[in-house]
Amino acid sequence: MAQQISPPRGMRDFLPADKRRRERVLGTIRAIYRAHGFDEIETPVVEDAARLHSGLGGDNEKLSFGVLRRGIGADDLAEAAAAADPQLLCDLGLRFDLTVPLARFYASHRAELPTVFRAVQIAPVWRAERPQKGRYRQFVQCDVDILGEPGELAEIELLTAGSAALAALGLHDCVIRINDRRLLTAVLAACGFAPGDQAQALISIDKLDKIGPAGVVAELAETAPGPAGHLAEVLAAWAPQLEGGIVAEREAMLAALPESVRDAEGVPDAVASIDVIAAAVRAGGGTIGIVYDPTLVRGMGYYTGTIFEVAHPQSGSSVGGGGRYDGMIGRFLGQDVPACGFSIGFERIVDLARLDDAAGARDVALLADKRLPAADLVRVKAAVLATGGHDRVRVERKPKNLRGLLASLETQGFSHVAHVRDEHVADPASLRFEPLGAPE
Amino acid sequence: MAQQISPPRGMRDFLPADKRRRERVLGTIRAIYRAHGFDEIETPVVEDAARLHSGLGGDNEKLSFGVLRRGIGADDLAEAAAAADPQLLCDLGLRFDLTVPLARFYASHRAELPTVFRAVQIAPVWRAERPQKGRYRQFVQCDVDILGEPGELAEIELLTAGSAALAALGLHDCVIRINDRRLLTAVLAACGFAPGDQAQALISIDKLDKIGPAGVVAELAETAPGPAGHLAEVLAAWAPQLEGGIVAEREAMLAALPESVRDAEGVPDAVASIDVIAAAVRAGGGTIGIVYDPTLVRGMGYYTGTIFEVAHPQSGSSVGGGGRYDGMIGRFLGQDVPACGFSIGFERIVDLARLDDAAGARDVALLADKRLPAADLVRVKAAVLATGGHDRVRVERKPKNLRGLLASLETQGFSHVAHVRDEHVADPASLRFEPLGAPE
Repeated sequence: MAQQISPPRGMRDFLPADKRRRERVLGTIRAIYRAHGFDEIETPVVEDAARLHSGLGGDNEKLSFGVLRRGIGADDLAEAAAAADPQLLCDLGLRFDLTVPLARFYASHRAELPTVFRAVQIAPVWRAERPQKGRYRQFVQCDVDILGEPGELAEIELLTAGSAALAALGLHDCVIRINDRRLLTAVLAACGFAPGDQAQALISIDKLDKIGPAGVVAELAETAPGPAGHLAEVLAAWAPQLEGGIVAEREAMLAALPESVRDAEGVPDAVASIDVIAAAVRAGGGTIGIVYDPTLVRGMGYYTGTIFEVAHPQSGSSVGGGGRYDGMIGRFLGQDVPACGFSIGFERIVDLARLDDAAGARDVALLADKRLPAADLVRVKAAVLATGGHDRVRVERKPKNLRGLLASLETQGFSHVAHVRDEHVADPASLRFEPLGAPE
Repeated sequence: MAQQISPPRGMRDFLPADKRRRERVLGTIRAIYRAHGFDEIETPVVEDAARLHSGLGGDNEKLSFGVLRRGIGADDLAEAAAAADPQLLCDLGLRFDLTVPLARFYASHRAELPTVFRAVQIAPVWRAERPQKGRYRQFVQCDVDILGEPGELAEIELLTAGSAALAALGLHDCVIRINDRRLLTAVLAACGFAPGDQAQALISIDKLDKIGPAGVVAELAETAPGPAGHLAEVLAAWAPQLEGGIVAEREAMLAALPESVRDAEGVPDAVASIDVIAAAVRAGGGTIGIVYDPTLVRGMGYYTGTIFEVAHPQSGSSVGGGGRYDGMIGRFLGQDVPACGFSIGFERIVDLARLDDAAGARDVALLADKRLPAADLVRVKAAVLATGGHDRVRVERKPKNLRGLLASLETQGFSHVAHVRDEHVADPASLRFEPLGAPE
């Protein structure tokens, strides 16, 4: 038996129909973001290994593919062997997200960018995860970020533009859940979690929908038994939110906060901020709703304020998300830069999106006898192309199995065929197009 | 002084204006190829190291970036150190061209593809070359290939579609030079070069425009003095072609062949094939010309028949090229597959291309006082977007240095601005748009 020839493990080839669908979805997203005033940029797929491993990427740093340094000699290999550290051989790595590259890009080009910079990045990233269904080692991320805007204008523009993109893809059933890390931090502080224990507590709470309140409390009871006990009471208050799904309103969110927290530092500001953002998104009149969700955490450690996530009834996991992460973009610059981002889960929505067929366009195939000279066939093709109104014009030599060819063309999305004979070469206008798949 | 923060050596970031230009050029090329019946595909950026180093990539194989295997331990490092072979640590590599991935893709998916498969690939490739002006370590290739078509239909469709793409980019001054490897092989055989020496002779002849006839003969005189002497006579006959540049016609090409070669095996077929292709491209009525060029070699070793290259007066090197390479695509399948390809030198034409401004579209910026609530500003933006006819709608808070913002917006391609005041929130239709850059 011949050896199976496949793309590298955990990675995918895209055949014409898939590639076409992906490009159309990305084209729709691009057009909406551009209309909303965002600018697309591009960075190389690799970054310096030191920057990729500078702590901005959280757990994803461990999943980075390393790129071998050029010109490695026996000495280098011996040194890496002695240190038992293969990373010594890598000066570059494939990016695992688009946020570290954005921070590096901003540090490289800040002087050439607008004061408030609205960036679009649509590009592949790589993670050496154990391959499993729906999780790939190369996948496309689709990020918008607003850098340099400290106020809610950033959140509102991101959510408005992001909602418009999802709506343009027919995903009107999406719902945005919104929360603020400052609320979670205040809750944890009120429960008695020391600042150093709060990151771990957030990681546990983020698993609430998977392991339940008891699971979260159990995870935290070992290192911080007292605070975990207090947290258990808060999680009990969140139960209605969790059971009812994404139906929370402002009052429900406030009710879900321990009384001692409601006036704590940062909390009134955070609630007011969510109010402003939610009201503005609703006033935008889009089809996509927004709800308060005090249980929302988001995984990454770098969020500092508003966080949001987009749910869709046909997707088990979120189809988008983001938030404010003011401390990170300026890291390579050595100064603070306000930053807020939103990411569409492209690989999750690409199959859910509803794309209109191009109105009135025809995909036609010209079928010719084998003895018709190639030059004549291409001349007829050029004449058909020149008449316009076609999405594609394909030429095909008629095989013995014409029925098989017609079936294949239909699968490929062609709508019409015409049989090209000698007389059509002089007069291509006399070609007769028949719909494919018409009853025989 | 702050450390300079740059993209990895030899690689580029693309700022908004550059990225926009690149995407528009690629979009034009994509649309033309699709209209001409080609199908776009995509493969992962990495391929198995063994396939990348299987001999199909010529010298480019040496320029491949290796990707470190995951889970490398001390034993693996010791082994690589003992063998002084860093490649033992790589299971994958970044692709250095799109042809090896196409051969692998075809082997993986042949059963799902049409019998004659017209593939488009537009994607980055990586080569660890010494960085220099105009040569980058990551760059975009833009390939079309027809697999499964043994006749001139492939060459004609490739050149017709490729010419249409170049013309759509305003590059009407392009000229296609065409030749056939079978002619070169026949000439070398007639000169007395042994089959094993012909590849090296082709590499030397390929440098004709750089080192001249004497340089070519000198390079070959050491290993094959006799044949090199005969070749000197042929090159003398090519002198008019070289001096006159790209003006050769059929008769000039035949005259440039040694008399003993004109009836040699394969030669009449090759000349007839060029005749058919050139006539068909001319009959297509496009703006881009085609000329016979017996001196054309093309660098890669895998060509087996027709070869072509596209010259443009404003580019020192070719802006496109390709040819027939029947032996290669089937390599991973273990069978012969006829194949012919054409590649546009995207990085060379992206700055030469002339793009029309989108007719009538306006890029508008809404300038608001700092105290106007963000929600109101976004509401006005939504109203302006809803009126349509805009390419982009950007909101900006007015800074102290308004003149600086206006200059920046003009540089970014915005055409109009409007000042948003309280009264416009209730009635966005009352906004007054002023052209940017108008005399004060």
